[in-house]
Amino acid sequence: MIKNDPIGIFDSGLGGLTVVKQIVKLLPHENIVYLGDTARVPYGPRSPEIIKKFSEENTKFLIGKKVKCIVIACNTSSAVAADYLKRKFSKVPIFEVINPAAKQAAGSGKRIGIIGTRATIASKAYEKDIKKYSKFAKVFVKACPLFVPFIEEGEISGKALNEIANKYLADFKFKKIDTLVMGCTHYPIIRRIIEREVDYNVKIVDPGITVSLEVKDFLLKTGLLNNQKSRGIDKFYVTDLTKRFVSVAEMFLGDKISGSIQKIDLIK
Amino acid sequence: MIKNDPIGIFDSGLGGLTVVKQIVKLLPHENIVYLGDTARVPYGPRSPEIIKKFSEENTKFLIGKKVKCIVIACNTSSAVAADYLKRKFSKVPIFEVINPAAKQAAGSGKRIGIIGTRATIASKAYEKDIKKYSKFAKVFVKACPLFVPFIEEGEISGKALNEIANKYLADFKFKKIDTLVMGCTHYPIIRRIIEREVDYNVKIVDPGITVSLEVKDFLLKTGLLNNQKSRGIDKFYVTDLTKRFVSVAEMFLGDKISGSIQKIDLIK
Repeated sequence: MIKNDPIGIFDSGLGGLTVVKQIVKLLPHENIVYLGDTARVPYGPRSPEIIKKFSEENTKFLIGKKVKCIVIACNTSSAVAADYLKRKFSKVPIFEVINPAAKQAAGSGKRIGIIGTRATIASKAYEKDIKKYSKFAKVFVKACPLFVPFIEEGEISGKALNEIANKYLADFKFKKIDTLVMGCTHYPIIRRIIEREVDYNVKIVDPGITVSLEVKDFLLKTGLLNNQKSRGIDKFYVTDLTKRFVSVAEMFLGDKISGSIQKIDLIK
Repeated sequence: MIKNDPIGIFDSGLGGLTVVKQIVKLLPHENIVYLGDTARVPYGPRSPEIIKKFSEENTKFLIGKKVKCIVIACNTSSAVAADYLKRKFSKVPIFEVINPAAKQAAGSGKRIGIIGTRATIASKAYEKDIKKYSKFAKVFVKACPLFVPFIEEGEISGKALNEIANKYLADFKFKKIDTLVMGCTHYPIIRRIIEREVDYNVKIVDPGITVSLEVKDFLLKTGLLNNQKSRGIDKFYVTDLTKRFVSVAEMFLGDKISGSIQKIDLIK
């Protein structure tokens, strides 16, 4: 592995581009290879077995692109498949979004709320990692399965979303949480709606930000930080390419998509 | 093919069980093999290319189960892939849900509304088929992409769904439609909410019902109607099996699941 090898990032779909946004902000000289499994998004409602299978296929693809490390930019995949992938592909450093966010939350709060997909919440991955760093923190969880489809459809405001947000999040007020982890890479898009429902004084942890710090730390320690002034062309791979790709991708990235976009077939 | 060969039915997921419900009601002695591609549901937001690919894999699987005919119990797949599948697999009769429903709508209405997934609406399949049967019918379409996730999540009533239904359907009142096609096999679950939004005097066409009539007609004409008094065990195959399978499947089927359930891998 050399400095200007790219960082490989994968997600079930395009939500992981919120993580790319944070990585590019913090590490502006790194080359990025992104894989979105858009033919099989979402992973959130699926079983652990199938999430592992899909995640393994994604990882193999990125390894084939000679990446210097891999970031699982998907909470569902991180929660369910990260340990499995780390055992299976021990030669490439694999970062997942749960542990850094759990550490951050444990350091900042005593009553911590976690929101995520059904699979992420069912895995109890956040609770387990928070317990490693704080014996006394109380953790409250809530699966919010409709947030992803709303966001994917660009329905990021309006009465229906407010109703759903209230339904999912109102209980956190009674629980008096002081910290909330947005445990799905789609959620930063509706951060304001989430903040309003849980109260503005609750600290929000964005796993896209915390994992970026972890990656930077690793690159500095290993001497793999890319110090070329400009980075190459970012490469975006997807397993399905629809007409809505650019508009949805740019919503998550918060910027224009610049780089090559290619549809690939993971299973030949 | 013989009389007690099963009828093969596939859908992107479990919504197609609303079609199974209608087929079993009309053809109580037929054996059923159902395939739900639950590992890759939903098809509605995906590209025509990938929908064709997935539909072809489903069809091959059912042909391997020695079915006497195949019913595509998915509007998205019917709209995008039916012609392709009929050309590719010309030896097995393939029924799709669009044509019978279009015929029914053309026969009953002059101002026809169509609701469905993004892919179904983009295909213009309903408009094309209605024009074959009625030169004067006016057709109004609306993609309703959030209905599927709401229904899959069991959110089949409540304020948020009402808001979304109103947003999607209010315009049909101004258009003064007399007929509405529920162009997605999930929608019968929220039929009452749809009826309320478009007014109760609008005739509702349920493609699950109209395709069942077509299948019965075919079996009568070809002498393939099963006249054994009791049918064998229904076989349900899925590409992903989650803990929520039984509750979601029974919601669509409107009955207890009785028969064998097996998880299979379409791509080895």
